[in-house]
Amino acid sequence: MSNLVSKEIRLKARPVGMPKASDFELASKPVVQPGAGDVLVRNIWMSVDPYMRGRMMDRESYVPPFQIGEALQGGALGQVVESKSDKLKVGDFVQSMWGWREYETNKAETFQKIDPSLGPLQAYLGALGMPGMTAYAGLIKVGELKDGNTVFVSAASGAVGQIVCQLAKAHGCYVVGSAGSDDKCAWLLKQGVDKVINYKTCGDLNAAVGAAFPKGIDVYFDNVGGSHLEAAINHMKPFGRLALCGMIEQYNDTAPRPGPSNLIMAVGKSLKLQGFIVSNHLDILPAFYQEMGALIKAGKMKWQETIEDGIENAPKAFLNLFTGGNTGKMLVKIGPDKAV
Amino acid sequence: MSNLVSKEIRLKARPVGMPKASDFELASKPVVQPGAGDVLVRNIWMSVDPYMRGRMMDRESYVPPFQIGEALQGGALGQVVESKSDKLKVGDFVQSMWGWREYETNKAETFQKIDPSLGPLQAYLGALGMPGMTAYAGLIKVGELKDGNTVFVSAASGAVGQIVCQLAKAHGCYVVGSAGSDDKCAWLLKQGVDKVINYKTCGDLNAAVGAAFPKGIDVYFDNVGGSHLEAAINHMKPFGRLALCGMIEQYNDTAPRPGPSNLIMAVGKSLKLQGFIVSNHLDILPAFYQEMGALIKAGKMKWQETIEDGIENAPKAFLNLFTGGNTGKMLVKIGPDKAV
Repeated sequence: MSNLVSKEIRLKARPVGMPKASDFELASKPVVQPGAGDVLVRNIWMSVDPYMRGRMMDRESYVPPFQIGEALQGGALGQVVESKSDKLKVGDFVQSMWGWREYETNKAETFQKIDPSLGPLQAYLGALGMPGMTAYAGLIKVGELKDGNTVFVSAASGAVGQIVCQLAKAHGCYVVGSAGSDDKCAWLLKQGVDKVINYKTCGDLNAAVGAAFPKGIDVYFDNVGGSHLEAAINHMKPFGRLALCGMIEQYNDTAPRPGPSNLIMAVGKSLKLQGFIVSNHLDILPAFYQEMGALIKAGKMKWQETIEDGIENAPKAFLNLFTGGNTGKMLVKIGPDKAV
Repeated sequence: MSNLVSKEIRLKARPVGMPKASDFELASKPVVQPGAGDVLVRNIWMSVDPYMRGRMMDRESYVPPFQIGEALQGGALGQVVESKSDKLKVGDFVQSMWGWREYETNKAETFQKIDPSLGPLQAYLGALGMPGMTAYAGLIKVGELKDGNTVFVSAASGAVGQIVCQLAKAHGCYVVGSAGSDDKCAWLLKQGVDKVINYKTCGDLNAAVGAAFPKGIDVYFDNVGGSHLEAAINHMKPFGRLALCGMIEQYNDTAPRPGPSNLIMAVGKSLKLQGFIVSNHLDILPAFYQEMGALIKAGKMKWQETIEDGIENAPKAFLNLFTGGNTGKMLVKIGPDKAV
């Protein structure tokens, strides 16, 4: 395979405000032959996620920033096509953080073997992967969910939100989701979500949240920050928990945006606002695989995905995250389902 | 005692913005004779506390609002002068929420007997009372304090803050306190606080907090909100805890004030911001009395208090809370130490 060429997407410029196509560039380079302990993997699927926006900035954070001129990274699923390691063999399906490229040659330890019989392969980038674990950790652990709680979910039809909604329903909760289109709202209702708010057409968001929760909110799963967070704080019950998962509404801000003006209510209502990153909650993995696996098997966990075809369309897929151009998990199909 | 008259302070008008003397009125009424099960108590000390500002507004909260034309309420210490109850006898020292008045006749159950040998009587309105319990619940339970943590305390020389600082020092922590005068700062240093910030003269508060915490903050005990909260969020360590006790900086705002513009950092740093009210944490009482009692006995818990004399000066004492006119616990001496 010495003549193989791998196409990849590199960061060309650090985005200022909303990222644009010209911040990325498509490039090619020869595939590196695996050395001792290495495997060569051909990617089949890759993920684009909102958190990647943060890594495009040159700042200290929980993950190091992407470097200009280098291939981006992110969740990917592929198949081993050459192996110089006894840990993985040709044909094994693996997940890794070597997304944004067609091929990767690296130590076998940087790939994790997966069982393709549990569900469609790309579920490992969704319900069975990072978005699923994020939903689970945020709702059950950070949100301290109790059966029968009232739950508010923003970006409810997104990769994480759609799983949060169904997990909460599986726990007998009253669930209200907000989303940015009537189609997304209709899909949520079909999955059993009790009420939906189209935040683009509802008018006064705070009033809409109040109307949907006459008795208040026990758990708010925050994917967007901003006005959603402020509305949630207004309507939280005493001792409510707010799981802060992401604030996509302000990822592209170029100047600081004022926080919720009603944070003072956290004192009187004894609210807990807690940010979290899924990688710090890997102790949940056994419970997560058990519960999520059972829900998928029972047909109680559905998901939507939006697929872009070809590595060259990965930047477009990423940009769609910030314009509501995706429904559910945003994926890029890089290669055929079977690489060997 | 049928001719006794009790002076009391009534709410005359709901304050708009900063409260003023004319929002209060001094009035007198005849002392009510105790009926069966009642006691008549003469107050010796009363407390003024920032939380009372909230009760002066007509809004739903965790305590009902004060009513116009009626005596205010709040923590008080007194002595039983007549008893028609077998629960309390003449001469017993008691604490109650019947402050802002010289005498109160009410059910014996609305008073709690205290042991005057544990410390000066007014300590039951300070280190051994609500402020002490607030400090303890916020720091140990909500703040999940671990020995050796780095701790930032705002309003550090206030009734609660001064106790938080010394509690944290007793747990081997590195403690930085902010206060609004050099005298207050000097007192804190004398009690063993490691560094102090005079927020009125330090210039850039955020830079001052950063300089005081080169390795970041584990626990922030927030008494003021606003710019202090924002600075703390900037410098919290990953997994830091922010105990939200009060936001006195904005109690008198007439319009909502934007919240911290950096709340998004709570996600990346996995921060927990938790509001609390001491009355929801009464499970700490046994541990609190044990630890606080031992610290007082060992001379490791000092406090400052500012005393106004006479019920007629209670409004002035209250107003001082918002102008920094008090140092430590603000108290009003209503009557002689021994009422009978």
